[in-house]
Amino acid sequence: MVNAEFAKELVSSKFRSINDFPKKGIVFKDITTVIKDKDAFKAVISYFADKYADKNIDYIVGLESRGFIFGSALADRLGCGFIVIRKPGKLPAKTISQEYELEYGTDCLEIHEDAIEAGKNVVIIDDLLATGGTANAACSLVKKLGANIIAVAFVLELAFLNGRKKLPDNIQVDSMIIDVD
Amino acid sequence: MVNAEFAKELVSSKFRSINDFPKKGIVFKDITTVIKDKDAFKAVISYFADKYADKNIDYIVGLESRGFIFGSALADRLGCGFIVIRKPGKLPAKTISQEYELEYGTDCLEIHEDAIEAGKNVVIIDDLLATGGTANAACSLVKKLGANIIAVAFVLELAFLNGRKKLPDNIQVDSMIIDVD
Repeated sequence: MVNAEFAKELVSSKFRSINDFPKKGIVFKDITTVIKDKDAFKAVISYFADKYADKNIDYIVGLESRGFIFGSALADRLGCGFIVIRKPGKLPAKTISQEYELEYGTDCLEIHEDAIEAGKNVVIIDDLLATGGTANAACSLVKKLGANIIAVAFVLELAFLNGRKKLPDNIQVDSMIIDVD
Repeated sequence: MVNAEFAKELVSSKFRSINDFPKKGIVFKDITTVIKDKDAFKAVISYFADKYADKNIDYIVGLESRGFIFGSALADRLGCGFIVIRKPGKLPAKTISQEYELEYGTDCLEIHEDAIEAGKNVVIIDDLLATGGTANAACSLVKKLGANIIAVAFVLELAFLNGRKKLPDNIQVDSMIIDVD
C-alpha cells in the first residue's frame, strides 16, 4: 500500500513541460522524466495496483504507445493479462476498428477481434486524458467485444479540456493527477 | 526464481503465427497471445528479472513499441527507471538520433539527449531480434550517451536471420527463446 497523496506529489514533480510540442502553443507534459525516476515510476504503478487489487481484473488494456508503459507493469503487478489497442495496420490478426474525430480529420484505433472474451473485467489505461477522443474510441472497442469496463485510468488528466465528458456515461474514471502545473 | 525451461516452453506455446504479415511470404510471430496469457506474460518478466536481479541495473531501455510492453514491467520488477527509444518526432525534448538500414531505404530511432547519465548500467529490451538493425541502432544511441550496456534482451530471436552478427562485438545478447516453431 502506498500513500496516495505522497505518490501524487512525487509524480507531479517529475513531469517536464515542453513548450510548443507537438505544435506551437501547446505545452506538452513529458512523462519520460516520470518513468525515468525509479521512485516516481514505482509510485504510479503502486497507486493503480492498490486501486484495482481487489477488483477481480482479468485484463489491463493499454493504448498505443505510452499506455503500454503503464499498462504492462500494472498487469504484471496484478497478475493479469495485458491487451493492446493499436493504430491501424499494426496488429497482425483479424481486428475490429473504431474511428474518432481529431481537431482536423479523423484517426482510428484497432483491437484484435479475439483479444478479450465477453464478460471479462478490464481496466483501460493511458498516460493522458486530454480531449477524450482516444479513450472514448478505446471504450467503444472494448464494449464491442462484450467486456466489462471496471475503470478507465490515466496518470494525468487535463481537466480544462473536458475529456471526461466525451467518455461513456457512468463509467469510472480514475485519474491519478489532475492538471499538473 | 522461475524454472527457466518451463517458462520458455510455456511462452513458446503462446506465440501465434500469422502468415503474410506485414507482407506476403513473412510468417509473423504475434506476441499479443503471449502477453494476454497471465502466466506466460509473468513468465517472461520473471525470466528476465531473475537474470538481472543482481546486476545493479540503473535503467531498462525499451524500444518502441513492443519493447515498451516487456521493458516497463521489467523495470518495475527490478525497481529501476524506464527509458524509451522512439521513432522520429515522438519525443518532445532534445534528442539524438541514429539512422539504420532497412531492406529498402532507411529508418531512424531517437532518444532524449538527457535520458541516461554516462556510466549508468542499462539493459536494452525488445520483443524480437530479427535482422538486428533496430537493436544495433539502439545500442549506438545508448553508447553515445556513455552508458554501459549490460545486455541486450529479446523475448524471441529468429536466429536464421543472423541478427546477432549486426550487434556490437562482445555485447551480451540474452534471448529467452530462439526460433519458435
